[in-house]
Amino acid sequence: MAITLRQSDADFEQRFAAFLLTKREVSEDVDAAVRAIIARVRAEGDAALIDYTLKFDKADLNKLGIAVSRDDIAKAYDDADPATIEALSFARDRIRSHHERQKPKDDLYTDAAGVELGSRWTAIEAVGLYVPGGTASYPSSVLMNAVPAKVAGVERIVMVVPAPHGIINPLVLVAADIAGVSEIYRVGGAQAIAALAYGTETIGPVAKIVGPGNAYVAAAKRQVFGTVGIDMIAGPSEVLVVADASNDPDWIAADLLAQAEHDVSAQSILITDDPAFGKAVEQAVERQLQSLPRAETAAASWRDFGAVIQVPTIEASLPLVDRIAAEHVELAIDDPEAFLSRMCNAGAVFLGRHTPEVIGDYVGGSNHVLPTARSARFSSGLSVLDFVKRTSTLKLGPEQLRALAPAAIALAKAEGLDAHGRSVAIRLNM
Amino acid sequence: MAITLRQSDADFEQRFAAFLLTKREVSEDVDAAVRAIIARVRAEGDAALIDYTLKFDKADLNKLGIAVSRDDIAKAYDDADPATIEALSFARDRIRSHHERQKPKDDLYTDAAGVELGSRWTAIEAVGLYVPGGTASYPSSVLMNAVPAKVAGVERIVMVVPAPHGIINPLVLVAADIAGVSEIYRVGGAQAIAALAYGTETIGPVAKIVGPGNAYVAAAKRQVFGTVGIDMIAGPSEVLVVADASNDPDWIAADLLAQAEHDVSAQSILITDDPAFGKAVEQAVERQLQSLPRAETAAASWRDFGAVIQVPTIEASLPLVDRIAAEHVELAIDDPEAFLSRMCNAGAVFLGRHTPEVIGDYVGGSNHVLPTARSARFSSGLSVLDFVKRTSTLKLGPEQLRALAPAAIALAKAEGLDAHGRSVAIRLNM
Repeated sequence: MAITLRQSDADFEQRFAAFLLTKREVSEDVDAAVRAIIARVRAEGDAALIDYTLKFDKADLNKLGIAVSRDDIAKAYDDADPATIEALSFARDRIRSHHERQKPKDDLYTDAAGVELGSRWTAIEAVGLYVPGGTASYPSSVLMNAVPAKVAGVERIVMVVPAPHGIINPLVLVAADIAGVSEIYRVGGAQAIAALAYGTETIGPVAKIVGPGNAYVAAAKRQVFGTVGIDMIAGPSEVLVVADASNDPDWIAADLLAQAEHDVSAQSILITDDPAFGKAVEQAVERQLQSLPRAETAAASWRDFGAVIQVPTIEASLPLVDRIAAEHVELAIDDPEAFLSRMCNAGAVFLGRHTPEVIGDYVGGSNHVLPTARSARFSSGLSVLDFVKRTSTLKLGPEQLRALAPAAIALAKAEGLDAHGRSVAIRLNM
Repeated sequence: MAITLRQSDADFEQRFAAFLLTKREVSEDVDAAVRAIIARVRAEGDAALIDYTLKFDKADLNKLGIAVSRDDIAKAYDDADPATIEALSFARDRIRSHHERQKPKDDLYTDAAGVELGSRWTAIEAVGLYVPGGTASYPSSVLMNAVPAKVAGVERIVMVVPAPHGIINPLVLVAADIAGVSEIYRVGGAQAIAALAYGTETIGPVAKIVGPGNAYVAAAKRQVFGTVGIDMIAGPSEVLVVADASNDPDWIAADLLAQAEHDVSAQSILITDDPAFGKAVEQAVERQLQSLPRAETAAASWRDFGAVIQVPTIEASLPLVDRIAAEHVELAIDDPEAFLSRMCNAGAVFLGRHTPEVIGDYVGGSNHVLPTARSARFSSGLSVLDFVKRTSTLKLGPEQLRALAPAAIALAKAEGLDAHGRSVAIRLNM
């Protein structure tokens, strides 16, 4: 049973504040182990990768090869269900056309003083994409990470994925191929992150690493940050559904459970202005759990982190929605656009009664890599912007330098930086 | 004496690769001390701030107040040189008008399938700005951090600055006021970062913290990351000057020294196609050092990290420039635009012989907070984008859901996520 919070209760603010602080993850301290793995990969290269992979993944890369070959990919296509391959292509096309719109434009202009100012965007030259192995090896996540990099113009998109007992989900290889990944290596864990950051004989180093992973992968990403760029560290997923009584309780229950089935640490929250509707949804959740293959996971998530928040009016929930700052927000209400226009914090918003969040997971076209754990207050979902960088440019002639010099020299002097002042003055015989 | 590398030498690649790996900073391990400070500020709030400030800054906040008052700011204006105030306003205007162009535009469109997709940008609600005390308390940096936040539409811009012995550089307060900072507190160090992240009785928490600081501040920012957003961790500054023999060696020497005077860990690099010109610049550096107030710092930086790289042609330096990926690149050559168009990695590029990098430090209009230590390979300078976040939106009607459902359901099935499939199917009576 999820908890229930009533905005009208005297202790609501206190309970809601405590609810916001709920930790859903225990972070394992694996820093020392990861440090040792990274040091060994830097020192020994491929040999360390082969040894760690035998030990952790029970896979012999001397036989399998570190690199996944074109033949391996062809075989993956053969092994995959054609309808699923088609669905992946459909998703890729929709993701690509949406992300094309995110490409930033260069800006070059001359201001009133005659100074030329520019912002020039270029793709990161090489990017690493981590893909988890086993049950969390999602082909949809391969698309969501690789397609924006491809759209950005990244030349080398290098995927690493562990092959426990030698096996990689064929759909992951197909998704990588469909998305335009340029190289694939069957390594995982902290050793794969080290290889991407520092390079080995077989794997050339990249400039940035993205993609989700376990505690070792997350710790390794933090440790190599600076040498390479990294994306955000993803926490467990969450959905906040704002729903009035005009919804079918079964639809809303299905949405809450779609989130809950991900992980026992996932979180599903319902905000409603109708207590009876809230009860009906809770009953529907219990009913649907009966026939769900991942019922154990979903039930644990709903029991430990699920919540039903009763508000006097949908309108009154606005500040709560912004404070929760959820990864996914569904607005199953009348005029969801009016509500959205007053919202501030969310990774992605799904508008109306026919936009279940799941559409965004796969085929909506927008990205499903989104800020979790309230970080939508200060960060955004993955986009083309994560695979480009901006260089600013400045050009003055003698006249412009003369116009700007007095202020620059005054500020250099005020900051006690005489060589700064001289670098300007010397060009003007000042 | 700086080192000299010749691209024509047989061992160049080896020496250049080693040069790129040179560490210019020893990172102090202050994690445990910082952890204790943060824990105490979370537990005790203002009382901890007052106590730490007495201990570390020798300032009694019971007398001075934690908050800087309007009267304090008025007094700072009185204490500041009017010409410097005017230069700060001039710089603010130029920075503001350049950064106005960086504001991202919302995008809302309906695709061929009738799906409505949107990208909606909103300002981060509250941002903290750390300003170091003492000699590194630069008013220009206050402008460079606060103006983009103001342009982005951040409502609360909260500045913290330590007041050693009760004293704050009046120009820092004036710059904050001119830039539109909304609140100023006289606290610094890890305790200030903790206050910004978690809040105290006096200081309301923010959602993101930017600005440079010492090892304690950097460690504190890393530790609170996740609870709040942070900017990049700035390393020591660097300049790469690409110059042919048509330059006045004294101008180029002045530019190298402007960088070197910042810090003994700063780095100045000259790339030239004319060995005699390189020698002339080195001699000019030695000569100019004689009359430089910060000669000791500049000489140490030039001796320990300075470099002159001789290339057969300017053209041949392109791959080296991209591998160095410098924070600042000056192109004191003919047709710098042609060179720029083939470059990939740099924080900011200064074009032609009349654009010394120092102009960008103060009054060019572009931002001087730029990626250091080769991170221009994967990241960009500070901009309005650092103070906004994007929410993606999606809206389907029944018809669109019917069109997208088969692919979504196929992918959910392939990933073993039955509740995902159900959340779509239940709306279509499938």
